[in-house]
Amino acid sequence: MDLNDTASDTPSDTPSLCLDLDRLDHNLHRMQARADALGVALRPHVKTHKCAQIALQQRALGAQRITVSTLKEAEFFFAQGFHDILYAVAIAPQKLPRALALQQSGCRLTLLVDGVAGALAVAAFCAAQGQALDVMLEVDTDGHRAGLAPEGEDLLLAAAALVPHARLAGVMTHAGGSYNLHDPVALAAAAEQERAGCVRAAQRLREAGHTCLAVSVGSTPTALSAVSLAGVTELRAGVYSFFDLVMLGTGVCSRDELALSVRSTVIGHQAERQRVLIDAGWMAMSRDRGTQSQAQDWGYGALRDPLTGRWLDDLQFASANQEHGVLQAAPGVDVLQAFPVGMVLEILPNHACATAAQFADYTLLQRGVPTGDRWPRLNGW
Amino acid sequence: MDLNDTASDTPSDTPSLCLDLDRLDHNLHRMQARADALGVALRPHVKTHKCAQIALQQRALGAQRITVSTLKEAEFFFAQGFHDILYAVAIAPQKLPRALALQQSGCRLTLLVDGVAGALAVAAFCAAQGQALDVMLEVDTDGHRAGLAPEGEDLLLAAAALVPHARLAGVMTHAGGSYNLHDPVALAAAAEQERAGCVRAAQRLREAGHTCLAVSVGSTPTALSAVSLAGVTELRAGVYSFFDLVMLGTGVCSRDELALSVRSTVIGHQAERQRVLIDAGWMAMSRDRGTQSQAQDWGYGALRDPLTGRWLDDLQFASANQEHGVLQAAPGVDVLQAFPVGMVLEILPNHACATAAQFADYTLLQRGVPTGDRWPRLNGW
Repeated sequence: MDLNDTASDTPSDTPSLCLDLDRLDHNLHRMQARADALGVALRPHVKTHKCAQIALQQRALGAQRITVSTLKEAEFFFAQGFHDILYAVAIAPQKLPRALALQQSGCRLTLLVDGVAGALAVAAFCAAQGQALDVMLEVDTDGHRAGLAPEGEDLLLAAAALVPHARLAGVMTHAGGSYNLHDPVALAAAAEQERAGCVRAAQRLREAGHTCLAVSVGSTPTALSAVSLAGVTELRAGVYSFFDLVMLGTGVCSRDELALSVRSTVIGHQAERQRVLIDAGWMAMSRDRGTQSQAQDWGYGALRDPLTGRWLDDLQFASANQEHGVLQAAPGVDVLQAFPVGMVLEILPNHACATAAQFADYTLLQRGVPTGDRWPRLNGW
Repeated sequence: MDLNDTASDTPSDTPSLCLDLDRLDHNLHRMQARADALGVALRPHVKTHKCAQIALQQRALGAQRITVSTLKEAEFFFAQGFHDILYAVAIAPQKLPRALALQQSGCRLTLLVDGVAGALAVAAFCAAQGQALDVMLEVDTDGHRAGLAPEGEDLLLAAAALVPHARLAGVMTHAGGSYNLHDPVALAAAAEQERAGCVRAAQRLREAGHTCLAVSVGSTPTALSAVSLAGVTELRAGVYSFFDLVMLGTGVCSRDELALSVRSTVIGHQAERQRVLIDAGWMAMSRDRGTQSQAQDWGYGALRDPLTGRWLDDLQFASANQEHGVLQAAPGVDVLQAFPVGMVLEILPNHACATAAQFADYTLLQRGVPTGDRWPRLNGW
């Protein structure tokens, strides 16, 4: 039983997650054109949107393969007709039967391991089942999170541990450290470091006698900053479909490319403290404070007037409770008059992936106006 | 259409949200006994669990009325047989038709407004519809978030604005500031301040000729710290059903009362940096870092071994990406041996309301062992 099939029915209900289709379309074209110009295949990360309709748009522009962050996404998008899927989180051994079932149903599923232990676990499972799974090795090119050092001995040990029971599909890396940058020169350098490290890992594996077809790199900031992707076969990026305030802070997108917003209603005030209360708290926005470490800290999101599109720079999204957002107005603003009870405000999120995950669907906008349609999104595991 | 009706089917799938039924039962008894001893009705806030099975347990112990944070919760729990429901977030005027529909279907629904403007909006709607809604006035007793000052003129103006078109049901306050305390004496003082302010507001309304039956106070910390609730009619509390690390930090619960955990699997390592990677990131834990401002900062959660119940104090949940948790082991720990790939770890969340909201259901545990059953929970609006 699932209880979450009764999303609110009227577009005026708030909080609601709104998607500007014109901006989405622009963003999808922009990244596909990047991949085309760099001569690599685009493998969009659908963890940002988890929405079949958006993935189908990405495919219509040329992206045949996708990246997912959970096996549930893999199963869902395979059922929607996507056959080439990279599950880009190192596989837990307990999930191998579920992955094998998906492969056996016809999905070209590629798994990931980040070390020798993971490779041994996959190989042991494949040997026991008499079934080979496709596996990429995760390479660490910036010390961000996970992966094998391109020059390390473990890279070769992990590959040797995989074969022959599993198939080594290639190498992948994610330059997550690029999210902390904001200078175009530094971003281009991060992209080159990502490329060079991953290509180097592939080269070492090939020199050791392995087939290593895929060389997969990506993050939205590096994808939009790379000068060359020589030696790379595919580019992964996710948040570019919506962009968000964190991406704005890195400088890789403009305000006009922010496609996702939350609509919320003013429900009260603390007039003497210049505060406005709205019905979007952390349950709607998430607790993501990703811009806190950037030059411009947007609190829990940037405020915009949905009628005029104007950014409300005199209003800060200062704090959040479960279903309350607390907005702090600049001194001198008459909050009761400027932001009356019932007024609808738009909030641009810090991190699109996190905010979108708080909702079951997207309310669609065209030229800023709700179309009356919604697109469902997948959540959970 | 809702896509989220396909939660993973095997108990070994991680991340999963686990609920210890023995601890839940203890916690529910504890708060009901508190309310009974203080001589007030308990009105549990179901926003923490959003689960019919748990609300039914609360009712079986004596709690006939409930508090909700969304109209969707109100509609759901009314359909489950709960008839006395307080929607404890100031109502957005656009939601009034939905609230009226619920009242007309037989629900004893009470709404909330936090000022004169909200009261005028509700009264205007009631006048236009020729239907009276029940409304409480929110009173601000600690400057935490919202509400009317107990001694202010607006309290009387808001009440006057409501009647006769709407019915003044009473006053309510939420001592949210108590979450920042940790000293029993300070907590008892916060509870008394909450009580006294709310009772005083009711007194002023009665002196002005209003009927003000309900005097509703509460937060888990003040509910568990109050010495007297003289003049109060009902007590609201939510997170006590599960408790969490933030509540542990306030001192109002013990480690043995933490009923909610996330189970996660080790998926990799960065051995040279003493790091362990798990398959629970911020998507599973939420981004809530509520213990950051407390004496003991638990990062994204406290680690426990599900087999022994031992807290893993040599392991810190240092950072989180969407589906990756990064655990930092103490110097000298051989992470590959101590926390091998495939090992399952339990994580106690900072904030139970926020972590639970990331999942569609609870995996039930008895004496630490999965029973094989799950309880669904409501999400969204």
